[in-house]
Amino acid sequence: MITLYTWTTPNGRKASIMLEELGWKYEVKPINIGKNEQFTDEFLAIAPNNKIPAIVDHDAEGGPLSIFESGAILTYLAEKSGQFLPASGPGRYKVLEWLHWQIGGLGPMLGQLGYFGVRAEEKTPAAIERFTEESDRLLTVMDTQLQRHPYLAGDEYSIADISCYAWTVAATTFLGKVLGDRLDSKEALHRWLETLGDRPAVQRGMKIPG
Amino acid sequence: MITLYTWTTPNGRKASIMLEELGWKYEVKPINIGKNEQFTDEFLAIAPNNKIPAIVDHDAEGGPLSIFESGAILTYLAEKSGQFLPASGPGRYKVLEWLHWQIGGLGPMLGQLGYFGVRAEEKTPAAIERFTEESDRLLTVMDTQLQRHPYLAGDEYSIADISCYAWTVAATTFLGKVLGDRLDSKEALHRWLETLGDRPAVQRGMKIPG
Ligand SMILES: N[C@@H](CCC(=O)N[C@@H](CS)C(=O)NCC(=O)O)C(=O)O
Ligand SMILES: N[C@@H](CCC(=O)N[C@@H](CS)C(=O)NCC(=O)O)C(=O)O
Repeated sequence: MITLYTWTTPNGRKASIMLEELGWKYEVKPINIGKNEQFTDEFLAIAPNNKIPAIVDHDAEGGPLSIFESGAILTYLAEKSGQFLPASGPGRYKVLEWLHWQIGGLGPMLGQLGYFGVRAEEKTPAAIERFTEESDRLLTVMDTQLQRHPYLAGDEYSIADISCYAWTVAATTFLGKVLGDRLDSKEALHRWLETLGDRPAVQRGMKIPG
Repeated sequence: MITLYTWTTPNGRKASIMLEELGWKYEVKPINIGKNEQFTDEFLAIAPNNKIPAIVDHDAEGGPLSIFESGAILTYLAEKSGQFLPASGPGRYKVLEWLHWQIGGLGPMLGQLGYFGVRAEEKTPAAIERFTEESDRLLTVMDTQLQRHPYLAGDEYSIADISCYAWTVAATTFLGKVLGDRLDSKEALHRWLETLGDRPAVQRGMKIPG
């Protein structure tokens, strides 16, 4: 049994989509970051960086194992299940490239755009401009890759796609008012969004926590 | 033989430190990002996100393999060598937690602090304040972890440490003028910086490209 600590945000949805894809039993503990629940001692013991998502696998080898950082969680679940990440060979590192690209690029840059462009009360044009441009650049890199391949790491659906999905949805929804029509021309990205959005596990994972 | 595409920046140094630790033969191709060399077709074919570092392993199984994103590069080299990342068990995921924490947190946030606090000609106080606070928070999380353990992932030196080193050095050097005395009290962090700085491979890696 796995416990998932999460909230209604793109980083949290990576973990719930993966667990739904695997079809594993898990319990959800909502951590309301709007109410600072990420700062309780209980949560910090699992996630010292005070961010969701985090998991505890109560059936890990050698006793319960806690993991924070969505990229580490996806890798753990992929390696435990043998799914969505090849165990070796070039395909493995194509997946890890795009996984790290999401963790280090798409996530933090769209996250900053969300802060400066949507959430911050005082508007800072220089920051909005920087993160709008960087987000557009990243989404263009992604679109270019998806013009060449059905999925981010090539021919197979992987944790790289799972990692990028909820952030790309955010780019077309709550970040849409800042990004404007910049996404319209990115046709491969829209095709990929539809393909993933048709997966029942993705649909279920996007509704966690309810 | 491995080709390393890199520049004199913290993200590049992760890869050169790792290659020096392994003692593997590699050739260095400097990509001067100040001169936009990251936008040539040759480099983009390897690194579609136009960022260093990237590698090509000419002796990979099945033919030459290119990898971009420092986290993917470190994981590849660790898995190929069997060093600095346990192959399985809880220790493996402790390393991946802190590796992803660097890729998704410490790197991008110190990177934005470098941009708004040092490089940008026009100063934007709201952005400087946000990234100063976030950098300080992250360095405190790191210091707390290093109060409890000699290395980031526990008792053993790993790719998590290699990943964080050059960025933490940057926090004490060129970012020092923005961070001020915020690092002074972080004693465990300074102890860890010294331990790593004493390693000959770290010293050599920090000088690449020459
Ligand atoms: N790199 C982290 C980012 C996680 C993250 O930013 N989580 C946000 C919600 S989307 C959070 O918990 N924020 C609360 C806080 O920073 O206090 C990951 O991929 O897991
Ligand atoms: N997440 C990437 C970040 C790499 C990165 O930001 N590289 C910078 C230098 S430190 C770069 O090449 N910048 C050039 C550009 O953005 O055009 C990684 O860890 O490899």
